[in-house]
Amino acid sequence: MALLNEDRLFPVEPTVRDLARQLYSSVCDLPIISPHGHTDPRWFAENKAFANPAELFVTPDHYVFRMLHSQGIPLEAMGVPRIDGGETEQDPRKIWNLFAANYHLFRGTPSRIWVDHALQTVFGVTTPLSAETGDMIYDKIADCLTQEAFLPRALFEQFNIEAISTTESALDDLRWHKMIKDSGWSGKVVTAYRPDAVVDPDFDGFAANVEQMGALAGEDATTWTGYLAAHRNRRAFFKSFGATSSDHGHPTARTEDYSQEYAAKLFAKALAGICTPDEADGFRGHMLTEMARMSLEDGLVLQIHPGSSRNHNDHVMAQFGRDKGYDIPTRTDYVSALKPLLNAVGREPNLTIILFTLDESTYSRELAPLAGVYPALKLGPPWWFHDSAEGMLRFREAATETAGFYNTVGFNDDTRAFCSIPARHDVARRVDCSFLAGLVATGRLAEDEANEVAYDLTYRLAKQAYRL
Amino acid sequence: MALLNEDRLFPVEPTVRDLARQLYSSVCDLPIISPHGHTDPRWFAENKAFANPAELFVTPDHYVFRMLHSQGIPLEAMGVPRIDGGETEQDPRKIWNLFAANYHLFRGTPSRIWVDHALQTVFGVTTPLSAETGDMIYDKIADCLTQEAFLPRALFEQFNIEAISTTESALDDLRWHKMIKDSGWSGKVVTAYRPDAVVDPDFDGFAANVEQMGALAGEDATTWTGYLAAHRNRRAFFKSFGATSSDHGHPTARTEDYSQEYAAKLFAKALAGICTPDEADGFRGHMLTEMARMSLEDGLVLQIHPGSSRNHNDHVMAQFGRDKGYDIPTRTDYVSALKPLLNAVGREPNLTIILFTLDESTYSRELAPLAGVYPALKLGPPWWFHDSAEGMLRFREAATETAGFYNTVGFNDDTRAFCSIPARHDVARRVDCSFLAGLVATGRLAEDEANEVAYDLTYRLAKQAYRL
Amino acid sequence: MALLNEDRLFPVEPTVRDLARQLYSSVCDLPIISPHGHTDPRWFAENKAFANPAELFVTPDHYVFRMLHSQGIPLEAMGVPRIDGGETEQDPRKIWNLFAANYHLFRGTPSRIWVDHALQTVFGVTTPLSAETGDMIYDKIADCLTQEAFLPRALFEQFNIEAISTTESALDDLRWHKMIKDSGWSGKVVTAYRPDAVVDPDFDGFAANVEQMGALAGEDATTWTGYLAAHRNRRAFFKSFGATSSDHGHPTARTEDYSQEYAAKLFAKALAGICTPDEADGFRGHMLTEMARMSLEDGLVLQIHPGSSRNHNDHVMAQFGRDKGYDIPTRTDYVSALKPLLNAVGREPNLTIILFTLDESTYSRELAPLAGVYPALKLGPPWWFHDSAEGMLRFREAATETAGFYNTVGFNDDTRAFCSIPARHDVARRVDCSFLAGLVATGRLAEDEANEVAYDLTYRLAKQAYRL
Repeated sequence: MALLNEDRLFPVEPTVRDLARQLYSSVCDLPIISPHGHTDPRWFAENKAFANPAELFVTPDHYVFRMLHSQGIPLEAMGVPRIDGGETEQDPRKIWNLFAANYHLFRGTPSRIWVDHALQTVFGVTTPLSAETGDMIYDKIADCLTQEAFLPRALFEQFNIEAISTTESALDDLRWHKMIKDSGWSGKVVTAYRPDAVVDPDFDGFAANVEQMGALAGEDATTWTGYLAAHRNRRAFFKSFGATSSDHGHPTARTEDYSQEYAAKLFAKALAGICTPDEADGFRGHMLTEMARMSLEDGLVLQIHPGSSRNHNDHVMAQFGRDKGYDIPTRTDYVSALKPLLNAVGREPNLTIILFTLDESTYSRELAPLAGVYPALKLGPPWWFHDSAEGMLRFREAATETAGFYNTVGFNDDTRAFCSIPARHDVARRVDCSFLAGLVATGRLAEDEANEVAYDLTYRLAKQAYRL
Repeated sequence: MALLNEDRLFPVEPTVRDLARQLYSSVCDLPIISPHGHTDPRWFAENKAFANPAELFVTPDHYVFRMLHSQGIPLEAMGVPRIDGGETEQDPRKIWNLFAANYHLFRGTPSRIWVDHALQTVFGVTTPLSAETGDMIYDKIADCLTQEAFLPRALFEQFNIEAISTTESALDDLRWHKMIKDSGWSGKVVTAYRPDAVVDPDFDGFAANVEQMGALAGEDATTWTGYLAAHRNRRAFFKSFGATSSDHGHPTARTEDYSQEYAAKLFAKALAGICTPDEADGFRGHMLTEMARMSLEDGLVLQIHPGSSRNHNDHVMAQFGRDKGYDIPTRTDYVSALKPLLNAVGREPNLTIILFTLDESTYSRELAPLAGVYPALKLGPPWWFHDSAEGMLRFREAATETAGFYNTVGFNDDTRAFCSIPARHDVARRVDCSFLAGLVATGRLAEDEANEVAYDLTYRLAKQAYRL
Repeated sequence: MALLNEDRLFPVEPTVRDLARQLYSSVCDLPIISPHGHTDPRWFAENKAFANPAELFVTPDHYVFRMLHSQGIPLEAMGVPRIDGGETEQDPRKIWNLFAANYHLFRGTPSRIWVDHALQTVFGVTTPLSAETGDMIYDKIADCLTQEAFLPRALFEQFNIEAISTTESALDDLRWHKMIKDSGWSGKVVTAYRPDAVVDPDFDGFAANVEQMGALAGEDATTWTGYLAAHRNRRAFFKSFGATSSDHGHPTARTEDYSQEYAAKLFAKALAGICTPDEADGFRGHMLTEMARMSLEDGLVLQIHPGSSRNHNDHVMAQFGRDKGYDIPTRTDYVSALKPLLNAVGREPNLTIILFTLDESTYSRELAPLAGVYPALKLGPPWWFHDSAEGMLRFREAATETAGFYNTVGFNDDTRAFCSIPARHDVARRVDCSFLAGLVATGRLAEDEANEVAYDLTYRLAKQAYRL
């Protein structure tokens, strides 16, 4: 008995399924390159056991708790911490059993595949999760978590992760990364430079953040040139802990390429807290171009993740804070928004800008045509709400014909849920092999080419694009 | 010989087709829940015979006459009534034969499936409709229509309709519903509260309509509080005729949650006819939030159908009036538009707001993420131009991975064409079973789960969401 | 050995593949109607040999050179001419070998199919193009090009082209068309009227262009009525060289129907170079309506191709000029944009307006609903970035259910790459037959109907819509 079907996600027609299975067999055991995600470096630094099944599967996974919540279950009941001091469920078994009893809600969703995959391949569970089996499965996982083989580093190695990138604020002291480095452990865990707190005038405490960055960098960051120098310094610091990329999560894809004079003036207004909303947006946009220019110097890959309307509900924001499932994709324009950046640096062959989207209508209309001509641009994989089997297939179908495979960068998992990493990469490998099998079966690609592309999409392109 | 293929709309791969057929066999005979449509309650009240085939299939069906018209056939020739007194074709056989001779235009469209289904299953026709067979089929249908078994109530029962909701204006006296109720007939025909005429300042005769509503409700509806009270009164009246929902067809999805003071001020301007277009739009948007608040009191389900640019052609509007096929979908934003409403009531677990769209690009980008987190939100089925086999499949493929199945509400037919009701539900059942069969065949769902979901999508979810 | 799979692009399920193959066999040898493209009439006028493989396959084909460029290859290295006098590669063999060595970039793209098709069916190449085979294939093609059978007219006949339309500026003297006409050659090569240079106030040298048009037409084109008369005259001139259509490539789909007074006033401002951007846009929009009115008189079909953000990179524009692959699709609105035009002439049954889009999200939302009701409107085939197998399939899936087949106009290739014409039409025929086979296999269409529709889509609809 098993939760997982060996041929899951492969095409249904037997000939194409055989092709997909054969392609998959050549890449399924390749190491995982995880160049963009949100795992906690502290796990690998301290290498302490995960506390309980709920902490591993429910409370940190916004895919999971948002779905349960959508059917009327309060966030509190799933142990999502309140920032206003309100009470939340503390009993992990109760939280787990709530999840188990409502597991039917995940039918047809990627969470179902990820959770089943982790339950079976990591914890040896082969019985479907339900109200009836909740306790039994809880006990089984809880028992595993007490064993050495289930410590973070052991799982990292078992997952066959060759390299993983976490994401830290520009103000982070990278203590956990330092601890990992000092430990002598061979696992490759690098950081990524995420400067939202110091490039977004609307960020909580922007001016104080900038000052703090200056202190960390030994620069007077309250002047425009000192501010830029402080960025350079912090980027170098992040590089010394393996960073190969920066990451930028703006509300829109707007970029600007202002004169240094005007940028300095805006920066002063931002520090003084007197930017109009449009000026703040322009400043964020201009900083993307500055970051790209720094990337030309220091080689960091620039990642742009626009288009999320974050914290859509005021009450949830007030009670629970950020990142609580109330982030909704928005329609996103790239063509005019990226023009200033691309005019400035888009033709640089040694620069890599990786674009993500939450607006699938842009795949064929904007992103593939842009990446299919600008040397510096590459397309990131389907992101967030779209990193599902159907979403990945739509991406390949819509982007490949104009951007090809080689203007894309393989897969990244973008996850906070550690045990879902192998599952997510497995889904991506299966979908890519299925897509390639379809091209072979319809006479669009030779089998030897498909094998080569499967390898590239699974391993080589991510490694190369992210310089890992 | 038959018009209908037994395996129509099922996947083509034999294993998956078998799965789909098996799933379908378990739901194909379930009763029809038709919670949203535009059939005429008078049919069931008077139970008179339908006049002729043209009246049943052509003249009232905008899917049919718009397609014929698009190829240059004047609306007059199909008997579509003119409001300006112009002449129109009066001979139903001529109208029918025009339809028959141009039936090839419907190849590949859902109308083809619906009409063929009605011709075969209701009227026993097994010869394809064409110029050659037009007269013969006309005679066959016309003969049926003289028989008792083809009276509206008999068809209602033959169609196995458990419950149907019509839609009436807030100003309607519901006389036909009263006549049905008084008749003692057991068929469940309920109404739905559609207040466009009294919440839209741009509606023809808005101020007079409000006054009339006040008179009907015994309230002075020209004051803001009296106006709200009149709504409460009318909603209660509609509930007494079985209404379980209200229905709102605004040009956009804009909502507002104004202070009562500002709302009262806008209402006064609306009555005086001095709202700016933006104020009128804001007032409509605010009334959605007021309606939602009333729903919290009286339990009516709130349906929002935005995004149609109605009466796109001035000449057609002048000659034929509203609803003559010249309604065109528009790009629709939901994320910022619904924020005021959702901030006000989106987390209420006892409220049900059902969202529809004419903009498929919002399925994965906006609607599934919103319904996948807000407890009060559910997604209506593919609507109007998208209630086709391909459209339904696109909906499931794009919405399920983020919203799951249980944030959707099954199917509704939204039709004015009575005989198309069984056809439309049959299409939905076949497409849902095909989608589920695909999930089973690709290892994403167990067969017993698929059976359960098929039942839910066909019957349980509509009944539950609409409280029927 | 072969580059081409006989069953390429057909569905994979054997029964449906057989159906598709059978449908295809009935249309694969039909003559090519190419009603919209950008081949050079000079080829057919002079009938000189093509110079070399690079000139035939690389330098003029923006699909090819933009993809190579996207991976960091300078446009200069592919021989794309610079307008600023900069040096470019002159050795066609070097250019060809660059293409050959990077041919893997085209995996999964339509260019791969088009190039392979031309290599095999036109030049008898059966070895995959690669770094290793580049020289050998170059020699083979170069050798062919010296033979009579490979002269433009011979290829035209070999390609079984029944009629082809080129596109010329309103200011063109049509000398090559005259030379073709005078030559007595039987090949049907007609022109199309493209007046961008004289209807777009933002076009380089607008006022001078208008004056020149007046001189060509024998009218004082600097007055509004003279300007319109000059258009009429030029359209008649184009008609005398076989033109059956005009072609309009505006940034947006905006139309206007101004009063003659206001239009005359705007025209005067345009000539004086003092239009605001919005006025210039309005003038372009109004001229579409004027062109449609002229079409009512002279029968030319009106083609509208909106939605390209042209020359997206300033440096490329300065160094290489227009049409160098840096054109990016943009989100396009049709519903409100076309309203003035459609109110003016949309119900004219004798007018044909063919709409194209670069925004696939409009297929089901806007274009199919508009073409499915307005008698004058038809949908052009998937255009530019979307004239791929997947793109064509998405078009049929999204447009057919609302617009049917008979509000579409078959296929056009829109190409500058002569040898890709048979390949592109072959792809369209295969995809359409595959789509039809799917309808038959799922019980939505009878086989005899599918055969009829296949013929219509391949041949009859293009011929009829374009009056060729």
